[in-house]
Amino acid sequence: MTEGDEDEKDTGGEVDLGRVLALSDGVFAIALTLLVLDIRIPDEAHGEDFLRAMAGLEPAIAGYLISYLVIGVLWLAHHRLFRELRVRRARIMSLNMVLLALVALLPFPSSLLAKHGDEALSYAIYAGNVIAVFLIQSLIIAVSQRNGDITPKPGRFPRLGWYLQPISASAVFAVWAVVAITGHPGQANY
Amino acid sequence: MTEGDEDEKDTGGEVDLGRVLALSDGVFAIALTLLVLDIRIPDEAHGEDFLRAMAGLEPAIAGYLISYLVIGVLWLAHHRLFRELRVRRARIMSLNMVLLALVALLPFPSSLLAKHGDEALSYAIYAGNVIAVFLIQSLIIAVSQRNGDITPKPGRFPRLGWYLQPISASAVFAVWAVVAITGHPGQANY
Amino acid sequence: MTEGDEDEKDTGGEVDLGRVLALSDGVFAIALTLLVLDIRIPDEAHGEDFLRAMAGLEPAIAGYLISYLVIGVLWLAHHRLFRELRVRRARIMSLNMVLLALVALLPFPSSLLAKHGDEALSYAIYAGNVIAVFLIQSLIIAVSQRNGDITPKPGRFPRLGWYLQPISASAVFAVWAVVAITGHPGQANY
Amino acid sequence: MTEGDEDEKDTGGEVDLGRVLALSDGVFAIALTLLVLDIRIPDEAHGEDFLRAMAGLEPAIAGYLISYLVIGVLWLAHHRLFRELRVRRARIMSLNMVLLALVALLPFPSSLLAKHGDEALSYAIYAGNVIAVFLIQSLIIAVSQRNGDITPKPGRFPRLGWYLQPISASAVFAVWAVVAITGHPGQANY
Repeated sequence: MTEGDEDEKDTGGEVDLGRVLALSDGVFAIALTLLVLDIRIPDEAHGEDFLRAMAGLEPAIAGYLISYLVIGVLWLAHHRLFRELRVRRARIMSLNMVLLALVALLPFPSSLLAKHGDEALSYAIYAGNVIAVFLIQSLIIAVSQRNGDITPKPGRFPRLGWYLQPISASAVFAVWAVVAITGHPGQANY
Repeated sequence: MTEGDEDEKDTGGEVDLGRVLALSDGVFAIALTLLVLDIRIPDEAHGEDFLRAMAGLEPAIAGYLISYLVIGVLWLAHHRLFRELRVRRARIMSLNMVLLALVALLPFPSSLLAKHGDEALSYAIYAGNVIAVFLIQSLIIAVSQRNGDITPKPGRFPRLGWYLQPISASAVFAVWAVVAITGHPGQANY
Repeated sequence: MTEGDEDEKDTGGEVDLGRVLALSDGVFAIALTLLVLDIRIPDEAHGEDFLRAMAGLEPAIAGYLISYLVIGVLWLAHHRLFRELRVRRARIMSLNMVLLALVALLPFPSSLLAKHGDEALSYAIYAGNVIAVFLIQSLIIAVSQRNGDITPKPGRFPRLGWYLQPISASAVFAVWAVVAITGHPGQANY
Repeated sequence: MTEGDEDEKDTGGEVDLGRVLALSDGVFAIALTLLVLDIRIPDEAHGEDFLRAMAGLEPAIAGYLISYLVIGVLWLAHHRLFRELRVRRARIMSLNMVLLALVALLPFPSSLLAKHGDEALSYAIYAGNVIAVFLIQSLIIAVSQRNGDITPKPGRFPRLGWYLQPISASAVFAVWAVVAITGHPGQANY
């Protein structure tokens, strides 16, 4: 407890969790909604060109779905974690700002994937950004567990329970990126 | 109740409805506000060109009004449904994320309608997106009714009362799309 | 009271004012923030061109300040009105959605003013949009006063007190538009 | 107290702090999220061009990180200040609207820095915008201290404690801008 108190004293008292979550939900909502801006066809496409442009939207729409799913999963994880948090530590709030920076960045690799899906680097950057979010999430879990701020998950490995989702999701993205990059027509560039 | 409890156990406890609604309202507000980005004229239009560009904005403004009305109606329906929900099931929250994905997607068909109103496909995609939202809304109603989470609407068909709005609105959009596509100068393309 | 109850029965019960205000604040915040997107210079401007482009931003920055002030004043008026509302009528909530549609539209005339300030029509459309918002605000006041939902303002004309701000602000914008249009180099177009 | 009461009477009663903070958090969240829009490469860049475009993103990403940090720090300062405010004065709320205008403007100098980092003027405008935010923050502190609305910070200079962060941050930005401008290859333009 003493350390936690110090944490809070450092930054001038208790944290207003309501505003932290309002800012977080705002960033998640905008990141979710900006994704649609990558689904677009040229204004001057008509007739055959229009149909070709629409058919060519497939990677953009796939990118939208993947990124929406990713940000949705990240939000659900954020929601579950902060619901359990019993103490509002300034250190956690700083880590939350780093997490939000990485979430707000996600439209960039998402746009890369939609428009430059033929480049292996796009997959690496996308996976890197997502895994970085899970890393910060794991850091928040680690700090919270060390301070006893969250209840261990029931099961055989109570301390590891909270890490299960970020670690497995990170593994999925790492494998996805490796498969995409190695099986990629454009990998000769690297 | 047992199933509901299981639902919640699966995802680690009770859902914080406040944050779910904050995220939902954020997505609706941004979708409403992004629509205006399609109403624009070229920067370099002056004099006669400016007046012609302004006159040519008619479909973009019509698209803005239709899409605003659609998202407004969807938000009102969302607001009424979630106000009545007595139990906060994880399954409903997942369906809500799917619904939000479809709402966040709406600026794309709205932009298609504004800029490619001469293509029949634009109407089909627009109606498809809107009807998909109503479908998910009906699914949320169905799951909630089966679990007894919402009070039946008064009237002769209490169980059907909740479906009246999504079904009739879907029918309106289906008819609108069929009329627009069949009566369309560009339908020869299909 | 009977009419109010009918109003609410029509739309299925009491309105959740919290969500109405969350959506409203979201739309206002996004409209305020989208304005900055009109302040931009070409990516390829360097050296002399850069300085010329920066100097040419003056109308865009003036437009930003005016539009920010307008949306800020509209938000303050919205905030004061809804704070006083004792009953949550569905009719008021529908009028609020119309008001938000007009607020969400404001970035368009604001962009016109920033980029096409040499066209008289831009001023007319800008003033028209702002005055339309004040008109809907006056309608909300009228409906609320008729139902006795808001306390009359103190002063000699208690029923008129609430209209003072929207009417005087509308007059300012009407005069501003007339001055801008008649004293305008481009008015020969009309 | 008398003056505060007058303040509030001028604008028609007590301020709904919840909505003021909701609007503020919305503006901060959108300003944070719009920053990512400057990190983009041309759609048509492929192969070598793609890698070159990605490598050329370094200033854009540096700009994103700096601006995110700046807006994050501004939000934390806003959050700490408004948490301590005991009285909700209309004057403070007006100053808050000015502060939000400057926060909503930040994506513009941030974009300048990302795309025109070779121009000394970009640094001056960026620092000017940030220092202007800290100035308004100091004004809010000054008004609040004069009215006794915030508790003095503990320490040797209790009245100055609140100014420590805005003054030191402003100094950092002033020095940063001077160093960037004087040590700049493009300073011959001035």
